[in-house]
Amino acid sequence: MGQAAQQAAFELATTATAIKNNALAIIADELESNKDIILAANKQDIGAALESGMSDALVDRLLLNESRLAGIANDVRNVINLNDPVGAELDSRVLENGMRLSRRRVPLGVVGVIYEARPNVTIDIAALCLKTGNASILRGGRETFHSNMALVKVIQVALEKAGLPAASVQYIEQPDRELVSQLLKLDQYVDMIIPRGGAGLHKMCKENSTIPVIIGGFGISHIYVDESADLTRSLDVVENAKVQRPSACNALDTLLVNEKVAEAFLSRLVERMNKAKVELVADEAAYNLLEGKAASLRKIVEGDFDTEWLSYTLGIKVVNDVDEAIFHMRKHNASHSDSILTNNLQSAERFVNAAGSAAVYVNASTRFTDGAQFGLGAEVAVSTQKLHARGPMGLEELTSYKWVGVADYLSRA
Amino acid sequence: MGQAAQQAAFELATTATAIKNNALAIIADELESNKDIILAANKQDIGAALESGMSDALVDRLLLNESRLAGIANDVRNVINLNDPVGAELDSRVLENGMRLSRRRVPLGVVGVIYEARPNVTIDIAALCLKTGNASILRGGRETFHSNMALVKVIQVALEKAGLPAASVQYIEQPDRELVSQLLKLDQYVDMIIPRGGAGLHKMCKENSTIPVIIGGFGISHIYVDESADLTRSLDVVENAKVQRPSACNALDTLLVNEKVAEAFLSRLVERMNKAKVELVADEAAYNLLEGKAASLRKIVEGDFDTEWLSYTLGIKVVNDVDEAIFHMRKHNASHSDSILTNNLQSAERFVNAAGSAAVYVNASTRFTDGAQFGLGAEVAVSTQKLHARGPMGLEELTSYKWVGVADYLSRA
Repeated sequence: MGQAAQQAAFELATTATAIKNNALAIIADELESNKDIILAANKQDIGAALESGMSDALVDRLLLNESRLAGIANDVRNVINLNDPVGAELDSRVLENGMRLSRRRVPLGVVGVIYEARPNVTIDIAALCLKTGNASILRGGRETFHSNMALVKVIQVALEKAGLPAASVQYIEQPDRELVSQLLKLDQYVDMIIPRGGAGLHKMCKENSTIPVIIGGFGISHIYVDESADLTRSLDVVENAKVQRPSACNALDTLLVNEKVAEAFLSRLVERMNKAKVELVADEAAYNLLEGKAASLRKIVEGDFDTEWLSYTLGIKVVNDVDEAIFHMRKHNASHSDSILTNNLQSAERFVNAAGSAAVYVNASTRFTDGAQFGLGAEVAVSTQKLHARGPMGLEELTSYKWVGVADYLSRA
Repeated sequence: MGQAAQQAAFELATTATAIKNNALAIIADELESNKDIILAANKQDIGAALESGMSDALVDRLLLNESRLAGIANDVRNVINLNDPVGAELDSRVLENGMRLSRRRVPLGVVGVIYEARPNVTIDIAALCLKTGNASILRGGRETFHSNMALVKVIQVALEKAGLPAASVQYIEQPDRELVSQLLKLDQYVDMIIPRGGAGLHKMCKENSTIPVIIGGFGISHIYVDESADLTRSLDVVENAKVQRPSACNALDTLLVNEKVAEAFLSRLVERMNKAKVELVADEAAYNLLEGKAASLRKIVEGDFDTEWLSYTLGIKVVNDVDEAIFHMRKHNASHSDSILTNNLQSAERFVNAAGSAAVYVNASTRFTDGAQFGLGAEVAVSTQKLHARGPMGLEELTSYKWVGVADYLSRA
């Protein structure tokens, strides 16, 4: 499987953009013309999910219907319109010895992606990898096994119609994790592993993979409300960060409030949090300010500030100044998205320079950390590691570069 | 140790270039003023090396003397003159919602480097990491243990004189590999591991590290002599690639010759190879052409084309065309440096696009793959993986980036 992917990657690396786009167009068409097969396969997954007592929200993530499938096909057509980064020159110079030396974008090669149980992700990742000339080996959550098998079969037929190797997109066809473990050891053939999913999956990949892994999607998100902040406008930003979509990885986890404005700000914020049914988890100082006002309130216990809530819960802590806020963030794994609300230039600069997260904001909601919001056109994953790519990863982050030196029969002096 | 390094990295991340440069200047001075202590420690290492029967060439790599130490101090002063990449904006845009979004270069954080037994590398890596605001945890070959301990002590005293944390540069003080294994698991504190050294070390890091690893320095280097090549000028290039420094990772391993010019080229090359005492390891076709002419010749056996010689040995194979050359390179792990010698534009394009190595040349020696040759000012390692950095890594490759979004109390729509 790895070998077949590598062979496909060799061919894709020198495939013109027009041919890759043609393949994407055929994939989109085939998704629509094979809708009966795909929806029947999806029905199997849905049936099994309902039988297992899965929650409605999760079942809804698995569900495909005609209009969702049309949406997915259109997403593929949108990828056609994105700029193909492969072949672009990153920079170029002429050395003193006359060699013209440049760096050219090239595909990574073979990308392995392990992801959550959402069938649309299968198509999404396959399309983005194909556009960037990468072969992909996919493995989705087992709750979507039948749907994914049907989708990948459609893709492979479309690839062959387009004259490209079917092995450009492959799926790990066994429901158990044994083959995933084997995939993680294929460093001879696979160039990058992207695990999308829970902490357990990331840990497993980090510990077992001999292939470079992109770790992402985690991290506690913070907003620090400075003493100089416009408190009225800050209310909207904090509410947006916590309430808009609490299950997202860029949703607010911990609010840090400067002690000079803590009472004024929290007494107004609490109304909004009550209305949105947000549970507040407060340190001593914040608890004292919120007691009697918050509809749902408890004191923090060990580990609360290290918890990514992914739900209607908000940690709150009162701090002395921006430096204590930064100190808290360092201690509690701020690596994803953090924001300062302030009208003070010095505080803003200090925060932006010292915060160690992938995305740092001044006077904005943490909810902006997202490929589409950043104008990347697509998002493969959100990286919270520092190597290769950080934050939202678009098409460019699915590429590497090679050095190209052109000279006139030149030897090293 | 990891924790101390991370604390130091937090401080270094916001340290101004002038302060980092001042620390480098003090390090250079202290290396010179502490020369007696350093040379005495080195004497211990040299004594042990001689006792163990180490070869003269290897002992020479360990050896420090007054002039070498002055050279090392000057290398540190050269790093002062290099551009500090930290803080530079990679790109910047204003989103439709008014947010000013940019990517800013930041240090990686904590870098772990495991390297060969050469004391100058200790200073080199420490200086480059410091310049880029990274804390470093170093571990050199155990044959240089006493020298490295003395050097790192000098660095740490200099750091404190400069007002920077001594833990900015730390050394693993135990000669056995137990602590290295522990280092590889410190993903909570360490952001990148660079193993410089043999295949065994790379393998160990790949298999055991939970921290992203930069793999490098390996790979079979090829030159393909096309039928259209200027054969006379090609002789110089091939000789340079093989003979100038056979122990380097960019030295030529396998020569591929187009069958139409094989006889003409090899019959001339053999004289030069004989003179340089190069052993030729030839495939059937090349063997037949070289028999009776080559002073040292044998037929290839299984594995020869997968061997990085690092010595006066050259593999030779006759191929039909550029595509067979590319096919051979893919099969035999071409990932470092490869070159085509040709006057044909189509062959050159085909080779450059299809060759999968980190550095690809047209009409140049493979020996150019080197940070100094590429004008990077410094070289931390040569990466042969595709993630993060490829080929020679300079100061920029010791950095990551963060997204910075500045807005006016903006919520996501």
